[in-house]
Amino acid sequence: MAALTSITAAQALMGRAIAGDATTQTPSDHLAIPSGFGYSSLSGRALKTSVRQPQQHRVARFHRAVPFRAAAVEMLDGSAATTPLALFEKSVNTIRFLAIDAVEKANSGHPGLPMGCAPTGHILYDEVMRYNPKNPYWFNRDRFVLSAGHGCMLQYALLHLSGYDSVKEEDLKSFRQWGSKTPGHPENFETPGIEVTTGPLGQGVANAVGLALAEKHLAARFNKPDCEIVDHYTYVILGDGCQMEGVSNEASSLAGHWGLGKLIAFYDDNHISIDGDTEIAFTEDVNARFEALGWHTIWVKNGNTGYDEIRAAIKEAKAVKDRPTLIKVTTTIGYGSPNKANSYSVHGSALGAKEVDATRQNLEWPFEPFHVPEDVKSHWSRHVSEGASLEAEWNAKFAEYEKKYPEEAAELKSIISGELPAGWEKALPTYTPESPADATRNLSQQCLNALAKVLPGFLGGSADLASSNMTLLKMFGNFQNTTPEERNLRFGVREHGMGAICNGIVFHTSGLIPYCATFFVFTDYMRAAIRLSALSGGGVIYVMTHDSIGLGEDGPTHQPIEHLVSFRAMPNILMLRPADGTETAGAYKVAVLNRKGPSILALSRQKLPQLPGTSIEGVEKGGYVISDNSSGNKPDLILMGTGSELEIAAKAADELRKEGKTVRVVSLVSWELFDKQSDDYKESVFPSAVTARISIEAGSTLGWEKYVGSKGKAIGIDRFGASAPAGKIYKELGLSVENVIAVAKGF
Amino acid sequence: MAALTSITAAQALMGRAIAGDATTQTPSDHLAIPSGFGYSSLSGRALKTSVRQPQQHRVARFHRAVPFRAAAVEMLDGSAATTPLALFEKSVNTIRFLAIDAVEKANSGHPGLPMGCAPTGHILYDEVMRYNPKNPYWFNRDRFVLSAGHGCMLQYALLHLSGYDSVKEEDLKSFRQWGSKTPGHPENFETPGIEVTTGPLGQGVANAVGLALAEKHLAARFNKPDCEIVDHYTYVILGDGCQMEGVSNEASSLAGHWGLGKLIAFYDDNHISIDGDTEIAFTEDVNARFEALGWHTIWVKNGNTGYDEIRAAIKEAKAVKDRPTLIKVTTTIGYGSPNKANSYSVHGSALGAKEVDATRQNLEWPFEPFHVPEDVKSHWSRHVSEGASLEAEWNAKFAEYEKKYPEEAAELKSIISGELPAGWEKALPTYTPESPADATRNLSQQCLNALAKVLPGFLGGSADLASSNMTLLKMFGNFQNTTPEERNLRFGVREHGMGAICNGIVFHTSGLIPYCATFFVFTDYMRAAIRLSALSGGGVIYVMTHDSIGLGEDGPTHQPIEHLVSFRAMPNILMLRPADGTETAGAYKVAVLNRKGPSILALSRQKLPQLPGTSIEGVEKGGYVISDNSSGNKPDLILMGTGSELEIAAKAADELRKEGKTVRVVSLVSWELFDKQSDDYKESVFPSAVTARISIEAGSTLGWEKYVGSKGKAIGIDRFGASAPAGKIYKELGLSVENVIAVAKGF
Repeated sequence: MAALTSITAAQALMGRAIAGDATTQTPSDHLAIPSGFGYSSLSGRALKTSVRQPQQHRVARFHRAVPFRAAAVEMLDGSAATTPLALFEKSVNTIRFLAIDAVEKANSGHPGLPMGCAPTGHILYDEVMRYNPKNPYWFNRDRFVLSAGHGCMLQYALLHLSGYDSVKEEDLKSFRQWGSKTPGHPENFETPGIEVTTGPLGQGVANAVGLALAEKHLAARFNKPDCEIVDHYTYVILGDGCQMEGVSNEASSLAGHWGLGKLIAFYDDNHISIDGDTEIAFTEDVNARFEALGWHTIWVKNGNTGYDEIRAAIKEAKAVKDRPTLIKVTTTIGYGSPNKANSYSVHGSALGAKEVDATRQNLEWPFEPFHVPEDVKSHWSRHVSEGASLEAEWNAKFAEYEKKYPEEAAELKSIISGELPAGWEKALPTYTPESPADATRNLSQQCLNALAKVLPGFLGGSADLASSNMTLLKMFGNFQNTTPEERNLRFGVREHGMGAICNGIVFHTSGLIPYCATFFVFTDYMRAAIRLSALSGGGVIYVMTHDSIGLGEDGPTHQPIEHLVSFRAMPNILMLRPADGTETAGAYKVAVLNRKGPSILALSRQKLPQLPGTSIEGVEKGGYVISDNSSGNKPDLILMGTGSELEIAAKAADELRKEGKTVRVVSLVSWELFDKQSDDYKESVFPSAVTARISIEAGSTLGWEKYVGSKGKAIGIDRFGASAPAGKIYKELGLSVENVIAVAKGF
Repeated sequence: MAALTSITAAQALMGRAIAGDATTQTPSDHLAIPSGFGYSSLSGRALKTSVRQPQQHRVARFHRAVPFRAAAVEMLDGSAATTPLALFEKSVNTIRFLAIDAVEKANSGHPGLPMGCAPTGHILYDEVMRYNPKNPYWFNRDRFVLSAGHGCMLQYALLHLSGYDSVKEEDLKSFRQWGSKTPGHPENFETPGIEVTTGPLGQGVANAVGLALAEKHLAARFNKPDCEIVDHYTYVILGDGCQMEGVSNEASSLAGHWGLGKLIAFYDDNHISIDGDTEIAFTEDVNARFEALGWHTIWVKNGNTGYDEIRAAIKEAKAVKDRPTLIKVTTTIGYGSPNKANSYSVHGSALGAKEVDATRQNLEWPFEPFHVPEDVKSHWSRHVSEGASLEAEWNAKFAEYEKKYPEEAAELKSIISGELPAGWEKALPTYTPESPADATRNLSQQCLNALAKVLPGFLGGSADLASSNMTLLKMFGNFQNTTPEERNLRFGVREHGMGAICNGIVFHTSGLIPYCATFFVFTDYMRAAIRLSALSGGGVIYVMTHDSIGLGEDGPTHQPIEHLVSFRAMPNILMLRPADGTETAGAYKVAVLNRKGPSILALSRQKLPQLPGTSIEGVEKGGYVISDNSSGNKPDLILMGTGSELEIAAKAADELRKEGKTVRVVSLVSWELFDKQSDDYKESVFPSAVTARISIEAGSTLGWEKYVGSKGKAIGIDRFGASAPAGKIYKELGLSVENVIAVAKGF
């Protein structure tokens, strides 16, 4: 099983997995509870009659309409849900109080959602989901996303109870504190067990669509009738806020279109958002909307105590294999708090000592803060051994798969390992100054297609601009409901959803390398998703064409101006603007290697010549000299530019050299990479003694002071563009050889 | 009628209206066509049988299912649609060929939509809409938005035929050329008659929601049972692309919630987007989704030749007064082109000479490019006089209204005029250094409430963060379906929709001043709308709180870093970051006066002291000295900062002065305003001889080189934030008095 070990090792490497070997443990005796035990209409009896029931009329009506099921519900591995009700509710209340106590100690946080969603969360983590707490990156785990990320104490409590090493008692006690593993919103890069970083609403459900897409794609490519090696569900909890955000509709429309049957979403319908009752702004029929989007929908009308309803809904959702399922779970936010439940005051603030006491009394919770009762602890403890067994079973299955299908197994392993095939970069096309002039978007397509041949996890697409962004992989068909093994993703005109879905694909942590594309200006639509790629370290490749006024007639609505600098200011992202074929190949090399953060390639619509002096090595340094007729590192003038304007700089240099000047031309293809170089290297490119410097770039001049210095000049565009043929706009706005020469003569 | 003249004058001023007095013209004789003429099932007969019918099976089915109505349809003013069919179709084809010819001449553009939507456009502009071509800014005009802005030749053709002076024949011939009035996408600032700038998809329909909101609000405030002085419809055409974008769902959900009954949207269901058939990415049931959003929906199954179906749908939509209506109009993109209709190739490229010829033959169009046949010209010519009559009637109605309701009339006029009431700025609160420390978000609320008392057109709200953004107007209730006269807008968690709706409100050109709010970091969700405010000159006020790591425990997903610089780089927008109460009041003064572009106020969550030396006049200059112990404009050191860090700069200066240094402290509250000052003024603030300069700001340092110079130092944050109490993060990231002093000692 050396092969499998290597997968696990690679995963650990990729995902900073927690070490730990729990396979020697055996299931605890306490699991031997009588099977066949079911739920009765006494569900909810732990709740004292004195509890304020703000949604009483609604809940009461639901009770009448939907009698509780008494039968046991088939769950994980066909076993029945057999936890005694009292223990179940005690365990659910443990989750509630861990959330209450952590928020109270931090005096900051969101207790409302964990208190309301505790039953659903409990059923998911205790009865439904397959995972291994000691290896949060086990490949075939079920994925869970808390799209309503502010409720993160729900997930921290669940990770704690399930046995994840990332959330110990001391972590719960340092909720929202500097350096803790329990930040104010779930952060995948801080807390193993958290799949994706959430908090900015609506994106989590789109991430979940990406996770489910990754599963469906890999399953289609690698599963065999006799061996389903890729086989997990993706669960997501989203709230009213997520539902209101456009990005969730975009992604949900695609999930319906793609028929992602293993995506199961729980809509926490608690009727409260920060501004109060959702009646003031949100009165649409959510389930009807999802039906229109092609989803199966269910309504659990009593999400507070209708545990069997929740279980039955999950069972039903799993039975529907051709569509994703939305389970609307009507809950009471802050359930259990006698005076604050069902109000916005429990959404985002600590309950306060008095109300915490009242809630303890109300839910009959005599324990100290952060206490997990022994029987609850004991109940959950089986997940460590169960998880180890699940992973071991899968490992055995994989060993069998490898024996029967060695080629497929090798390919899957090579994807999962995240290790790029040796020599992959040699596949990138090469260019010489004699190669024909071409738009970098076209050269980009050559790179994408070259990469697709050597990188088995490479897939992506465009937001309905494939033929403009030049992003089609010619050797593959379209990823669709019935052809999920293909690799061209068709996102439709849904930029924000596209970015968030790609984050989901990359955080599937199965080694897939997603790229996505639109016009550079429309990064404005997806900026929130790009920021989450950057913050959470996702190596999504953003292929952004039509990167300046050079797109011409479509006009200022389509012409980026401030976009380059706006991404240069964003942490942990590479903004690359290649000037020709060689630099485009270099940018792809950098982007593919950059697995711990996103890369944006800004590419031209218009044709550009292949410039003498450009190089892949230069791109890797971010900034470098492409030509110079001076000696002793002391040119009269330094001209610098990026992308399509490097040509202008090079031509101006030629003219100025004819007049006897010594001129250096610098390509600054990526500021971030250049800024990381040594001071010596920087001095070799921009000698401090040379203050006559001109930058030229078809975008905002803001920030160029950094390189041209206080005596230099930045030629750029600090206004909106215009609708006209590209050449005309360039000329009118001073992006020309003539203007560079004129400015140069001003020194 | 001097009063009315002043309204018209003010509107002209506001909206760059085209001069012209058409009231002396009389309706042409040709209008005397027999009433009672109707349509028969021969509709569409102008289309030769040889026309390729790619959607034939569908269209054919619809023909069978829905027989054409033969009766005349009641239209504008209860009159019947009485244009003879042959003339109607000739006129529709005129639109098609103006679009074909303009795109062909430019060799760039989008002929497909105009060819497909010509019948709907024709019916709207010729039979349904009330407008005055010679005064595009007539207050009570019906509003039209082409959300699918790439199809702008449709609207240019319609404006041309209707008699707008903004689109003459020479303008059509200079489509997409430098300086023309017919840019590649509709731009309100270039072309009177265009209400809003569109092109970035999905936002137009959200703008339309804002336009309809403005109408409903003003109608509720000013209409009387005996005098409905505000009474117009808002029409919008949106395509598949718009429908896929999340922003359109956000805004449509609100339109349904608000019951905007006078909003009528036409969904051009042509089944084609740039990537091909929408089947590849967009298979949801759009009408069912809109029903779920609370809209009335209709399906016109033959939008190509089912003219009476279109008319009947509009009639039905008008009859439904409690909900907005979506009319799905199934059309053929590029209708009439024998070889390119119903394919993506007709979406965004010129047809090419050969196909233009084929289309001319197919549609039996013998005319030269850009020719408008005399009978068509004559048919449309009545709109100039009709428009003048409509405005004159309304003026008479307003005169009567003014007589009966002088107070209301005065208030409405004061809104429409766009002139701020004399002395309005005196209402802004004042502060002294002795005033209690407070968060600028709270001080902002004092300003908002003060402004609401003196600015009758002031209204706005938050994306579900009213109690965090502190944006409630205490003297008003919520704008809701049944209380549309109120001024607190409740957008729900829909930032992008909120921004685009506010653009619609401001471009209602009725003098309303909208503000909207969320956390500063979530400008990422609405950046595309903010950019359109900037590009198209809309004075929306963006109230952005929680403007830094100072928000504390919510962590890096909620902490802006790169946002200040990203807006400083955006053209035509004011980015303001006030430091205390005085500067907050100053920022509001600037923002209210800035009616030709948006303003963003970045406001703190945390308490800040009222600083000595801050002033409203200083804010108006963008940057100014708040304290200095030097003389002769030659301090040893200049410390500069914005917002919450100005306090740190001031405290550090105090310490350094104790040690004998001469230190100047500069507030750079708005770079844009400062950069507009004279060189002399700039030198008086930043004397070039003083190179020891330090900036401090809790955000990206990118761009600060501009002010600190190459020898200065920028203290800021070039990484993501963290989840912890605010004070702790400030300290850990070096945003402290101690650090400023340490850096200062490095000079």
